[in-house]
Amino acid sequence: MMTLSRHTSLDPTHDLTHDLTHDLQERPMARNRLFDDDVLVIGLGRFGAAVALELTKLGHRVVAVERDNAIAESYVNKVAKVVHADMAQSTALDMIRSAEPKIAIVGIGSSVESSVLAAANLVDAEVPSIWAKALTPEHKRILTRIGVHHVISPEADSGRRVAHLVNGKMLDYIEFDDGFAIVKLKPPSEAIGFTLEQSQIRRKYGVTVVGVKAPGEDFTYAVPATKISQHHMLIVSGPVELIERFAARP
Amino acid sequence: MMTLSRHTSLDPTHDLTHDLTHDLQERPMARNRLFDDDVLVIGLGRFGAAVALELTKLGHRVVAVERDNAIAESYVNKVAKVVHADMAQSTALDMIRSAEPKIAIVGIGSSVESSVLAAANLVDAEVPSIWAKALTPEHKRILTRIGVHHVISPEADSGRRVAHLVNGKMLDYIEFDDGFAIVKLKPPSEAIGFTLEQSQIRRKYGVTVVGVKAPGEDFTYAVPATKISQHHMLIVSGPVELIERFAARP
Repeated sequence: MMTLSRHTSLDPTHDLTHDLTHDLQERPMARNRLFDDDVLVIGLGRFGAAVALELTKLGHRVVAVERDNAIAESYVNKVAKVVHADMAQSTALDMIRSAEPKIAIVGIGSSVESSVLAAANLVDAEVPSIWAKALTPEHKRILTRIGVHHVISPEADSGRRVAHLVNGKMLDYIEFDDGFAIVKLKPPSEAIGFTLEQSQIRRKYGVTVVGVKAPGEDFTYAVPATKISQHHMLIVSGPVELIERFAARP
Repeated sequence: MMTLSRHTSLDPTHDLTHDLTHDLQERPMARNRLFDDDVLVIGLGRFGAAVALELTKLGHRVVAVERDNAIAESYVNKVAKVVHADMAQSTALDMIRSAEPKIAIVGIGSSVESSVLAAANLVDAEVPSIWAKALTPEHKRILTRIGVHHVISPEADSGRRVAHLVNGKMLDYIEFDDGFAIVKLKPPSEAIGFTLEQSQIRRKYGVTVVGVKAPGEDFTYAVPATKISQHHMLIVSGPVELIERFAARP
């Protein structure tokens, strides 16, 4: 075991845990963060790895825990710290307690059992903000019931989003809860050649053009005097039903 | 085989294919769609099922293909048509050709090989709009290279999104390509008690308040005279970096 520094506390068991790295405190960080702002990411599958890498990019100090040695090693230089351990084991509880993370994310996708055990260990350690990925609706219910604060269903969420994109009118689609959506789409022909004030899209369709993008340029915020050309992309927000109706315009 | 009606063409092989249903043409549809507007969904896992159900809700006529008999049967009354078949088989090519779908979605998540074979069959059949789910970056490269038009990576996309949500300032986060994001968040204290015209958020932070939501009410579009209270949620759009900076305000 190559553990060192104050993070030794994360690794109380020699047999279970193998600390692969490497304290990156001297690494330049986007923000100056304290140890208790570290984010614990459990499981470096596709979901967990994406969380860990994006958090690192945003300036968080990520402590990642991965059961598979080869995967764990492949992230040694990509996040602040990688621990080789099985967080579904009860010994993990001591590790979590001594690390005192404020935020933990369970990305385990190999089995519902491992995911639930790891999440339960985080709940028992009273981590204040626990996020977990659910594989199925039943898995989601269990995670919520044992006290996970935020449960994510990547496959189901992406599936719903794709359904709104397939007919080719919308180029991107995202939906908030409350049935409010924001989309990127090509302008309907009736808007081309007119300013937003002239085409009266909000009044006619109940949706708002938030911004426009010309080819090769950044998005600019829409104002009443914004004139739409056929080369523009529009960012439009509104209730899902009205957005769908607007996107169906020729 | 219980095949009937003009959809018989989807099922040329008696051994491979078992048509489970049930022509729902008399079912009321949100829009009157022609046969060639049917959407083919291959694989009813979590992703494919979410696509199929949401498309049905949007008024599309979904023809779903699933290899597992129990799963296939469980969707018989939920989408317009369910076919029990293995779309990775070469005999699937005839089925696709005779159905002539304009849009097909490959949701297969069990193996990269099955996904690629099914996608290749769709490409060979010259389906004009093919969507497929990728399990890994390598899988994504292969799908793109063989000619799939849109490749989706649910796990990686969700992971990146969660990274922006974990510090608790933002309640929802979505990002378009081009680094443009739209978020839901609680108003920063400096905005509370003032109208948008007074607080000058766009000028100060380079982000735009698109809409506001009061508890128990629908979203309303923001105008300069919109006065923000501590109970409001804001929908804010802007470049990712400026959004992150704005969301970090106390």
